[in-house]
Order: sequence, then C-alpha cells, then structure tokens
Amino acid sequence: MPDNRIATVRPVEESEATGKVAAIFADIKKTKNINFVPDFWRVIAINPNQLEMVWTTLKSVMHPEAVGRTPRLDARTREIIALAVSATNGCAYCINSHTAALRKLGVDDETLGEIMSVVGLFNLTNSMANGYQVVPDVRPRVE
Amino acid sequence: MPDNRIATVRPVEESEATGKVAAIFADIKKTKNINFVPDFWRVIAINPNQLEMVWTTLKSVMHPEAVGRTPRLDARTREIIALAVSATNGCAYCINSHTAALRKLGVDDETLGEIMSVVGLFNLTNSMANGYQVVPDVRPRVE
Amino acid sequence: MPDNRIATVRPVEESEATGKVAAIFADIKKTKNINFVPDFWRVIAINPNQLEMVWTTLKSVMHPEAVGRTPRLDARTREIIALAVSATNGCAYCINSHTAALRKLGVDDETLGEIMSVVGLFNLTNSMANGYQVVPDVRPRVE
Amino acid sequence: MPDNRIATVRPVEESEATGKVAAIFADIKKTKNINFVPDFWRVIAINPNQLEMVWTTLKSVMHPEAVGRTPRLDARTREIIALAVSATNGCAYCINSHTAALRKLGVDDETLGEIMSVVGLFNLTNSMANGYQVVPDVRPRVE
Amino acid sequence: MPDNRIATVRPVEESEATGKVAAIFADIKKTKNINFVPDFWRVIAINPNQLEMVWTTLKSVMHPEAVGRTPRLDARTREIIALAVSATNGCAYCINSHTAALRKLGVDDETLGEIMSVVGLFNLTNSMANGYQVVPDVRPRVE
Amino acid sequence: MPDNRIATVRPVEESEATGKVAAIFADIKKTKNINFVPDFWRVIAINPNQLEMVWTTLKSVMHPEAVGRTPRLDARTREIIALAVSATNGCAYCINSHTAALRKLGVDDETLGEIMSVVGLFNLTNSMANGYQVVPDVRPRVE
Repeated sequence: MPDNRIATVRPVEESEATGKVAAIFADIKKTKNINFVPDFWRVIAINPNQLEMVWTTLKSVMHPEAVGRTPRLDARTREIIALAVSATNGCAYCINSHTAALRKLGVDDETLGEIMSVVGLFNLTNSMANGYQVVPDVRPRVE
Repeated sequence: MPDNRIATVRPVEESEATGKVAAIFADIKKTKNINFVPDFWRVIAINPNQLEMVWTTLKSVMHPEAVGRTPRLDARTREIIALAVSATNGCAYCINSHTAALRKLGVDDETLGEIMSVVGLFNLTNSMANGYQVVPDVRPRVE
Repeated sequence: MPDNRIATVRPVEESEATGKVAAIFADIKKTKNINFVPDFWRVIAINPNQLEMVWTTLKSVMHPEAVGRTPRLDARTREIIALAVSATNGCAYCINSHTAALRKLGVDDETLGEIMSVVGLFNLTNSMANGYQVVPDVRPRVE
Repeated sequence: MPDNRIATVRPVEESEATGKVAAIFADIKKTKNINFVPDFWRVIAINPNQLEMVWTTLKSVMHPEAVGRTPRLDARTREIIALAVSATNGCAYCINSHTAALRKLGVDDETLGEIMSVVGLFNLTNSMANGYQVVPDVRPRVE
Repeated sequence: MPDNRIATVRPVEESEATGKVAAIFADIKKTKNINFVPDFWRVIAINPNQLEMVWTTLKSVMHPEAVGRTPRLDARTREIIALAVSATNGCAYCINSHTAALRKLGVDDETLGEIMSVVGLFNLTNSMANGYQVVPDVRPRVE
Repeated sequence: MPDNRIATVRPVEESEATGKVAAIFADIKKTKNINFVPDFWRVIAINPNQLEMVWTTLKSVMHPEAVGRTPRLDARTREIIALAVSATNGCAYCINSHTAALRKLGVDDETLGEIMSVVGLFNLTNSMANGYQVVPDVRPRVE
C-alpha cells in the first residue's frame, strides 16, 4: 500500500496560490532566503487566516531584522530553544526542521550532543520534581 | 487545613545526612557555590543511589568546569534550554529554579520575554505540525 | 528492510474473533455503521477485557444514542475535542482517525483551519502561563 | 512563609503602563468587555513585543468580530477547545480561565462533565494508540 | 484573598448524593474499603454519567477481584504504573493519591526512589530518542 | 522519494568507534548480552560525553547487578515502568524497544493488555483531575 500523504490535508501548491496566500508565500521565501515554500506553510495555507496568523507570529519572533526589531537572543539560541521544545513534545516535522536550521548555522555533532544532553537531563529532573511534588524553594520574584 | 508539605516524602535534613549523602550534599554546595542544599536534592536523597545518579548526571552536563570538560554551550544557553523544557512540561519547581538561575546570570525582563516568546511560538507550531501530521520536508542527514 | 507492521502486537483478525471479542467487533461495526473493524480495536483485542473496557467507555461517551442518553454536545463538537486532544498529544493514529471523522461530518478546510488555529494558540498560551507560573486570577467556583 | 507571588516576574500594573503596553491593555479591556487586565496579560507585558505578539494572535483567533472576520466556529466551541487543550497540558491558569469563560457562556455542570468525559476518553485512547504504535488505517486525504 | 477551592466546580457532598450517584459513592467506599469519598470522585459526580463511566472503568482495571477477574499484574505493580504515568504528566492530585496508595502497600523510601529513578531515566531517553528521531531498530512483532 | 534515515544525525558505526566510544559500545553489548549496538546508542555516540552520561545513568538504574547493587524492583517491573512512560510520551523508538524487552521477559498478550489498560486509565484520570484542578485530598507525608 503506497503512502504518499504528506499531511491529513492537501497542501496548497505554490502555483495555485493567489491573493493573501501568494503574498505570504512570497514573503516566506524572501524572509527565509529560500526558493521553495516548506510543506508546513503549504499545509496551513488551507485556511488563509491561519497562514497569516502563524506567519505574522513566527516572523516577528524569529526574524526580528525583517520587522526592524533588535533581538536579545541570536538566531542560534532561538533555534536551540525551538529544538528543545520540539524534542520535548516529540514533533517529528519540527525536530527535522530545527535540526536542519542548526546545521546551517554551523552547529556540529559535538554541540548538538550538548544541546540534547541538556534537553534529556531536564526532562529527567522535570519528571522527578513533579513526581515528588517538590514545592519551589527559590522565589525568583523579589522586590 | 494547614499545608506545610514540601513534597510527597520527607526530605533529608542536611544535619542528618551521613556517608554518601553527606558527601554529595557537600559537593552540591561547593560546585554550585551556595550555602544550602535546595529542596529537590534533599527530596531525592531519600534514596542515596538516586541522589548519586541525578547529581552525577547534572554535574557532568551543567558544571563542565567541575569535571574538567570544555563545553560548547555557555551557562546561559544551558539554563535557557532548561527553562524551555520546564515551561513545555509545566514543572513548577523547575521553572522557578531555572528562572532564578537566569536572573543570577543577568537575564532581564526583555530577554526573558524573548525566551518565552520563542517557547510559546514553537509549542504552537509543534501542535499544528502534529495536528496536520506534516511529514518532514527537510532531511538533515545528508550523504 | 520492508516494514509492514501495523503495531507492536499482532492484531486480532475479524475471522479469528470468538466469544466476547466477536460480539464487541460486531457491536463496533453496527454502532459506527462501518463494514470493518478499525485497527485500533483489533489491536487492543489482544486482551478481551481491555477491548471491553475501552469500547464500553467510548460507546457511552461518543455514541450516546446507542445507550439511550441525550447528549449535551453534538457529534461534531465531540470530534473537535478529540482532534484537539490528539493534536496536543501528537498521536498519529488518533489525528488521522478524528480528522477523517470530521470530514465525514462535513468539516471543510476553512473550519479545520480554525480548529487547528485555536489548538495552536492555546498550546502557545499554556506554555507561557506555565512558563511564568501565573497564578489563576479568575476563580470559577463562586459561592 | 507567606507566598504572594502571582508569577516568576513582577507583572506590569495598569497604572504604570505607557505607550504600546497601555494601548494594548486598553484594547484587551474593550475587546473582552472587562474592566481589568487579567494577570496573564500583565505578566507577559514585561516584554512589550511579547505582549503585542500574543494579543494580536489571540485577538485574531478568538475575537473574529473585532477584526471583521466571519468565524466558522462559535465562541462556545472555541472555549471548549481551549479547555480541552489546557486540561491535556495541565495548565492551571488556563484551565481556570477557560472554565470561567464557559460558565459565562452558560455551560452547566452536565455539559462541563461531557466535555471532560470526552477529554479524558481521548487521553486514554491516545496513550493506547501510541503505546501499541498503531499505524493509521484511515487516510483522511482523498482526492 | 483566601482560596478554599478544591476544584473548578463545586463537588457533590456525600450527604446530598441521590440515585445513581449515591449508589456509586457507596460502591467506591466499599470496594476501596475507605470511609469517605475522595474529592476526585465527588468532583466528577457533577455529571452522573461521567462518574459512572470513570468508576466502571477504574473498578474493572484496578479492582479485578471486585469484578471476578484474575489479574496478571498485582496491585503494587498497577499503582507503580499509575505513579509513573502521573509523574510524567505532572498531575498533582494523582501523584499524591498514588504515592499514598503505594505507602499503604508497604513501599518504602528506597523503593519509591527506584521507581522515580526509572521514571526519570526514561523521560530522559524518550526526549533524546525523539530529539534525534531514531527509527525503531527492534521490531517486536515477528512472524 | 526513498527514506533510509534512521535519525537526524549519522550514527557512529561500530567499526569506526575508538577510545571511550568503543569501550562503552563493548560494555553495552556485554552488559545487555547482545551482539550489536542498538541504534539509540550509536546515535547519541556522536558526542562521546553524551554517550557516557546516558550509559552510566541507564546502567546504574537498569542493570543493578552490573554495578553491584541489590535492586528493590525486578527487571520486569522496571521495563513496565519504561513502557508506561514511553506510551505516555509517545516515543516510537522507546515503545518498540521496551515492548521487545518485555516480550523477552515472557510478558504475553494478556499481560501487555493489562499494562496498557492501566496506562490508558491513568492518562484519562490525569487529564480529568487536572481539567477540574482537583486539589490533593490525601497527604502522603505524615509525621
């Protein structure tokens, strides 16, 4: 049984995009400096408002230079957070995408191993602190 | 009904620790340069092997200088990953602890807000990529 | 290496079902008005008590008309909840199954996009409210 | 030890808000027709860009009438999804907030019980379908 | 602001229970050999069908002797699984309840520590196996 | 498009392992009494410190006899916990691996069904206890 699905819905082909969807597809390619629209974006484009909402959010958080904002975190740190969240949630598409992004940013095996070691360690301590219901002993809010 | 629990078990008091537990408590205070043993460690000390296992792991990952290892990630990036994982898992103790650690490392409100914005964004995209079952379009493993 | 698994266990074939399992398989097909037993049910049938427990529960919650109960939620709303939970947990089988059920109920791309937008949004706010450990300001229980 | 924290950070008081933050606080109160700014928004306001990002997203998804969009889901269904996601993630603030919203929309105990029964059921089937690694038997994408 | 909530809803008092709810409350006390109805059951009793669904399921899985079934797992192993799942999900009520149940069954600190060590370890390996997207190398289904 | 990935990184081949990695690969095969290194270990070996950290932890928790420790839990109970955690997290590699390990330990379909029934049940009650924000009524810590 051949399985050529890429999602539970039929993604929007770049060639069939019009109006708001076409404009956002163009902005994704320009902002990310790539020559194709990744499947995630083609899939959520089945609802143009959804595409606009997610792209507006992601653009403002992950492409600060494109919206004229000076970020406090560099691109590598942002992608490390993205991978940490995605590994914790077990999202296959996201893990592949953010690992690829980190590779492009020059992250080698040694560094990737450190990232995943920290991710693994805190999934361990999280389940233990929850499992014993340890009450916070440090109160970050002072004043 | 007063509730003075700090966990589902009675934590080991520093004054009653002996042998392996006392030695690890001392190492925790020395390595972390603090003058008390945080509740998490006093709680898991109810089983000395458990305390040793978690401390050995955390020391090797989060205190590389103490084990003579040159890390690829700095302390701030490691704590950012810890907070990202803990926020995604909703672990109260851990969120408080790692937020406090980031404050000590000089992270201000603006930066904390960027960290949490990235965490929030990728919890959104994770649930969407999973929710549509988008298959990875980028294959990080080449060759 | 071909992979024709459909699970970590060998599902029960309809033709080999007897006794309680055969009766439940028949009830599943009748209640759901389908002419085959979905793999999920054939898999959990490896333990007849397990099959009975899950089917009894699902029948009472999702097929109220079959147990003579007047529901407060319609079938579409129930399947929307099912998809929201499954997307949040990242369960592939479940996401496919509930998306298919919504399609049968007439849900189009536009509506599916709204469902997933709401799911994505609240996975974002959940991780943020947890990540800052915001204490509830609204107490739903009055009196 | 008194604990009057409401978060790991000091929320922005309405009286001290200026510029973009003050404008968004006003828009939140107007759009939601309430006379105070809920703690969640005051907390994320520690970073004005974060506040803007989350509010823009939530306004477009949950207050379609305020952005001139005709929604496919009604307000009750959207809040039901919000509660289902929040219960699955175990976010205390969010569960309280969305339960309160459903109460305002007239949801009674009987209906709330049905919502939570569906949420509970599919957390059960999700863990089982994952636990046996059942491969999807239904392919929603037709064409 | 005093907070005497025990839930987002008002639990059903034992004294006000009638009909199906009263009968199930009685069965819970008898089956579990306790002289009060734990809050969880009083809360979900706001919807009698919900109470019946959950109690029927839990009774059949966790009290096999009460339904005339010979179990393959003993009570201690079942409660260990319950604690492992609850710690992984971070459910406070459940963690407290199942830890108490294990205490009643004679589980000491040493054993509790081993349980939580195994839970912590596999939350670590789960996030790493997911984080690298390792494909299963062992296929449990043979033939 | 053929997909022969086994991970987001290139695993270390046994034939190319040297030094610390080769020694740990040998210890894994000896301790587990198998004649190959499972993919998980070959993948995390891309960073030798990561391999050492995870193996040291897993060996001490899951192979107590190899480190001269007398365990309180038997091997079957430990693998049951591992499967319960992995099913709850939805980790495919881990579910396959621990199901295979339980098969080797003689767990039959009937017993596997009981394990998964308990896992499913408590994922249901967890989401409900969280969804209603039920406060713990049992306080395991006495004294």
